[in-house]
Amino acid sequence: MPRKKPDIDRIFHALGDPTRRAIMEKLSAGPVSVSQLAEPLDITLAAVVQHLQVLEDSGLVQTEKVGRVRTCRIEPTGLSAAEQWIADRRSMWERRLDRLGNLLAEPDQND
Amino acid sequence: MPRKKPDIDRIFHALGDPTRRAIMEKLSAGPVSVSQLAEPLDITLAAVVQHLQVLEDSGLVQTEKVGRVRTCRIEPTGLSAAEQWIADRRSMWERRLDRLGNLLAEPDQND
Repeated sequence: MPRKKPDIDRIFHALGDPTRRAIMEKLSAGPVSVSQLAEPLDITLAAVVQHLQVLEDSGLVQTEKVGRVRTCRIEPTGLSAAEQWIADRRSMWERRLDRLGNLLAEPDQND
Repeated sequence: MPRKKPDIDRIFHALGDPTRRAIMEKLSAGPVSVSQLAEPLDITLAAVVQHLQVLEDSGLVQTEKVGRVRTCRIEPTGLSAAEQWIADRRSMWERRLDRLGNLLAEPDQND
């Protein structure tokens, strides 16, 4: 199911927590169940579920329950939105540097 | 002055706040003074200074005081580190999708 438009506030808030980033690192290797996430991270199942809720609400993760097992996977739209926000800031900043460089390279009209 | 190695925890924590991202947006257009930052964001100078401290500690922003004016500018190393972290997660995830695609495209040996 396609997600709603990425909410950049929620995405960066979600990525601002080291445990949630560890979950994203784990998920980038492939989908896993909630209990498979909890074990290596050495946190309770309840804590994983809470973090997953934040990740899912932000659109970074999708979860699906089949029978008794909830499987979690990366939703790439969320990651792309965060990457784009950063890339936009960096490219604005770089364009400004280029303009400054061009100005400095121009012969001074007042000489 | 070159900054120490980017601290990805601090960077994402810093970017997780909407006011701090608004400061980054403003700074991506070019360096500004602390008071020039406070005015359009409609927050107190004290709050801007606090947010700037977080951004500076994370390596996303550099500030420099000349006389009585403190000027703030983007430190691109921090933004690049965050961008790289996201790009790495996304590319791991995409490589995995490619492998899955290849597996599905292979003729089944058991047929």
